[in-house]
Amino acid sequence: MRGLFITFEGGEGAGKTSIHHALSQRLSNEGYDVLATREPGGIKIAEKIRNIILDPLHTEMEEHTEALLYAAARSQHFFEKVLPALNQGKIVLCDRFIDSSLVYQGYARGLGMDEVLKINQFAIGDCMPDRTLFFDIEPKKGLERIAANKNREQNRLDLENLEFHEHVYDAYHILAERFPNRFQFINADQPMEDVEEEALRHILSLFKENKKI
Amino acid sequence: MRGLFITFEGGEGAGKTSIHHALSQRLSNEGYDVLATREPGGIKIAEKIRNIILDPLHTEMEEHTEALLYAAARSQHFFEKVLPALNQGKIVLCDRFIDSSLVYQGYARGLGMDEVLKINQFAIGDCMPDRTLFFDIEPKKGLERIAANKNREQNRLDLENLEFHEHVYDAYHILAERFPNRFQFINADQPMEDVEEEALRHILSLFKENKKI
Repeated sequence: MRGLFITFEGGEGAGKTSIHHALSQRLSNEGYDVLATREPGGIKIAEKIRNIILDPLHTEMEEHTEALLYAAARSQHFFEKVLPALNQGKIVLCDRFIDSSLVYQGYARGLGMDEVLKINQFAIGDCMPDRTLFFDIEPKKGLERIAANKNREQNRLDLENLEFHEHVYDAYHILAERFPNRFQFINADQPMEDVEEEALRHILSLFKENKKI
Repeated sequence: MRGLFITFEGGEGAGKTSIHHALSQRLSNEGYDVLATREPGGIKIAEKIRNIILDPLHTEMEEHTEALLYAAARSQHFFEKVLPALNQGKIVLCDRFIDSSLVYQGYARGLGMDEVLKINQFAIGDCMPDRTLFFDIEPKKGLERIAANKNREQNRLDLENLEFHEHVYDAYHILAERFPNRFQFINADQPMEDVEEEALRHILSLFKENKKI
């Protein structure tokens, strides 16, 4: 007995996080057994690891160390929270997962996607998501959406320049070619309610393919 | 210009740590530019990572997480302390390094030596030691030596049973077959002063091979 593991990925301003939240609610309300999570997901050890990564005093941190720490935090969140839920047959919706590391650290920061994939496959015992929804919008439009949203708190990634976000976008497309069965494109360049409906349709059709849900 | 990177490995009671200390002193006294270190080596970020690993409250820590955290601490110690010293042409003598993880976590704990090697090669940017001195003594004799040494503080590994230490011993021999050019056996089943002299002879002959020292 095993549930379904669905991850949400995309650049800034794609609407990923809002839709992750909305769909988790809707599916729960319709009676599905859903775990909505994101790293570090309230996992004590994973929080402590991220505190080391994000401590502004740690300016001397090596990029290899940082990538290993992200993988370590992911590992603990995965084995302590995600895997038990999957073993109970739940639908796990995770806002960002392994692909974010491949894209941001492996590609945009230049550590190498294959290298970062290896340490992350180790981190999750090679248990890749069943499906990854990629919220697809051109970086320029995503950033415009963010700029127009006065309620949104700025994060570290918002401060990068357009070229950085274009690298991220390219990297997601490389991953989509590499994992065509896992990646599902969602057109994020439409009104948010339409993005949400498109994502919901894909999740429901995935349930149909999987008799066990 | 690059120095020499020599690691000290072996099971419990092989005399590794005492000899690491003694030889670092002797070589320094003879005018060699030596950095004697062991992980986490006083590196702030590495110490913080090890505090997470060793916190007795973290009983829920996954073995994959632990292995990634050890690799992360190694990475920071390596890039912040070892590599700059090598770039300055120093002789770096490191008490335990990558092979200890392969042996203890990869083999004895069952995570897989190849898997643990991959994440650790990433951690050190594939910069393996030039030579690894393996202090070779049968586990039973090593443990007897520890029992006879009243000055030695007991550590976590001393508490494992003989079978565990025999696994460790087997794993070192597997690594020695895999990396024959890097591994140098030192007969540790002789009086400590003789072990020390044998280790010193090997280090001095290594200097001769390397004109740059």
